[in-house]
Amino acid sequence: MTTYNIALLAGDGIGPEVMKEAVKVLNLVEERNADINFELNDVLFGAAAYFATGKSFPDETKAACDKADAILKGTIGLNHEDSKKIPVDEQPERGALLPLRRRYNTYANFRPVYLPKGLAHFSPLKESVVGEGIDIMLIRELVGGLYFGEKETGVDAQGRRYVREVLEYDEDQIRQIVRVGFEVSMKRKKVMHNIHKSNVLKSSVLWNEIVEEESKNFPEVEVINILVDAAATYLCLKPTMFDVMVMENMFGDILSDQGGGILGSLGLMPSACKGPEKSYYEPSHGSAPDIAGKGIANPYSMIGSVALMLEMSFGMEKEAKNLWAAMQGVFEDGYSTSDLSKPGEANLVSTAEFGDMVCKKL
Amino acid sequence: MTTYNIALLAGDGIGPEVMKEAVKVLNLVEERNADINFELNDVLFGAAAYFATGKSFPDETKAACDKADAILKGTIGLNHEDSKKIPVDEQPERGALLPLRRRYNTYANFRPVYLPKGLAHFSPLKESVVGEGIDIMLIRELVGGLYFGEKETGVDAQGRRYVREVLEYDEDQIRQIVRVGFEVSMKRKKVMHNIHKSNVLKSSVLWNEIVEEESKNFPEVEVINILVDAAATYLCLKPTMFDVMVMENMFGDILSDQGGGILGSLGLMPSACKGPEKSYYEPSHGSAPDIAGKGIANPYSMIGSVALMLEMSFGMEKEAKNLWAAMQGVFEDGYSTSDLSKPGEANLVSTAEFGDMVCKKL
Ligand SMILES: CC(C)[C@H](C(=O)O)[C@@H](O)C(=O)O
Ligand SMILES: CC(C)[C@H](C(=O)O)[C@@H](O)C(=O)O
Repeated sequence: MTTYNIALLAGDGIGPEVMKEAVKVLNLVEERNADINFELNDVLFGAAAYFATGKSFPDETKAACDKADAILKGTIGLNHEDSKKIPVDEQPERGALLPLRRRYNTYANFRPVYLPKGLAHFSPLKESVVGEGIDIMLIRELVGGLYFGEKETGVDAQGRRYVREVLEYDEDQIRQIVRVGFEVSMKRKKVMHNIHKSNVLKSSVLWNEIVEEESKNFPEVEVINILVDAAATYLCLKPTMFDVMVMENMFGDILSDQGGGILGSLGLMPSACKGPEKSYYEPSHGSAPDIAGKGIANPYSMIGSVALMLEMSFGMEKEAKNLWAAMQGVFEDGYSTSDLSKPGEANLVSTAEFGDMVCKKL
Repeated sequence: MTTYNIALLAGDGIGPEVMKEAVKVLNLVEERNADINFELNDVLFGAAAYFATGKSFPDETKAACDKADAILKGTIGLNHEDSKKIPVDEQPERGALLPLRRRYNTYANFRPVYLPKGLAHFSPLKESVVGEGIDIMLIRELVGGLYFGEKETGVDAQGRRYVREVLEYDEDQIRQIVRVGFEVSMKRKKVMHNIHKSNVLKSSVLWNEIVEEESKNFPEVEVINILVDAAATYLCLKPTMFDVMVMENMFGDILSDQGGGILGSLGLMPSACKGPEKSYYEPSHGSAPDIAGKGIANPYSMIGSVALMLEMSFGMEKEAKNLWAAMQGVFEDGYSTSDLSKPGEANLVSTAEFGDMVCKKL
């Protein structure tokens, strides 16, 4: 009997709703596998934690994450107005999410931009552009760059407010994520798009140097260097030209959400955040405070994150595969949630119904 | 008789080809307006200038720009491999383009993401997404942020190469571009999307403060704050929800090129870069070294930049309008260039033929 301890950080907004569906799925997987035991540990995180304890990443949550084998995170964040009720440094992103990433050094963020042909109708792109389907593994550096550099605010000699923040990388940080890119490329099509902005940023100049150095260790992988702005053009224009994309933190934030756009919704994008010892899993979408509590959020990317966890943290590849198939099966049967489809286009189901259907398919 | 002195910086790659078409148009406009005289001054810029003089923005070019009433720029830059032949700090972007922006403090970059319904077929987006057409005025801060902050590279105590570069803004810099956003919004739909990343970047926190302060001077304008990542999602998913978008430099670089993607090509995006005293005009696309010299580059965004110059620097609004109409007329007659259409979809014409047709329509 193997026991896996999983910390559940449901978070804010639609987080608790979609987490519920993830738990349903985990319970079922456990039931089906006599030799597996999931120990689920529900803890506070984000604005919910701040309002309950004064900290958005409380010590108790840290302890639960420290002892967990993997962390499953929902969503965090409030709307623009409500977030003003929390001091800037305790806001869920700065006070909880970034410290979580830092604590476990989850430097490799995997964001599959995956749209099988059968789901192509969700995409805003023409059928001719989606072609045989989109299948990109977007790999984002997650614990460096502007996100974690020094920040300084103040008033200058002329009495003007100013702000300075630092984008920083060292070669080790770059090398470890670039290697992940090469390794993943080796398992896929052996073509890696390296996203950079070396015509302006010195950090990209160093980044590209490391890519060139590391490419010697992966001679079979073809490296295609492409400027981040050009990548943003082509991700709309010709997404099927990409297979593996590797990039620094902020570029990854923007391009992965653009990826969600071309799929039809961030609701179709689960994600894995891998550290040297521990990984956490989360949907790429936000907490959508405007629809929270209505039971209409699509749990695909939350359940997809469970699939990534089963595969990447617990080595349960078969179960992960079945889970993907079950989710896609629900769509193929003509069911959908309202963020993805309009009434009439599909049988619209609630968050809980979608979760139930996935379980039934499993 | 009014004389306008225009510095022509054709640049690299397809720059000279598309500039030729711009000159055709300028000559025709001059011919048609008895009281206008264009003094055109062709000067070296970019890699072309570097190889000829050892400087990518030579003193002679600076002098020509200094005395010009407006500057018309083509494209600059070499491909990844060739650009290694030029020392990093003389590369056309760092050595010519950024210094040009800095010299004339062209802080306001206007990038119209404009796709009238008649050109909707060029877009990779579904007809239902393009709807009645896309008409966004994307306004990008152009002389601050990461582009111009201090940069430091070195080797740390552990012997690792590292790089640090600074994203910096002061309130005056932010205020002047935000005001442009509000002023343009007042002339359009009175809705402004403010693009930011205040959940991570302190520069966005200051940026948003200034937006809030300035909004008191423009009470009629509705401000919608949206995270840059969410903006990247919605620019694909629902571009028609945007009218005016305002953002800092790097975000603008990426989102404007994404904008080119949703139009179908950066070849459809001219741009204006406005400073307090002088402005320059340029296509948003790059120098496309792979197709340079083949006579197949689409001169739309170069000629569109002429239209912007006529309107914004010389107050020739009627001529600008006619020029837009002429360009669109060529497309509507079923002609196109090969970057936009496949053989069979349209009558493919060369760069020069496109320019001639625009002139004939004028
Ligand atoms: C919530 C925010 C801090 C976060 C990020 O910027 O990384 C999110 O947008 C994401 O992409 O995971
Ligand atoms: C060529 C490059 C320096 C430039 C930029 O990054 O601003 C270009 O991409 C643009 O958008 O005008």
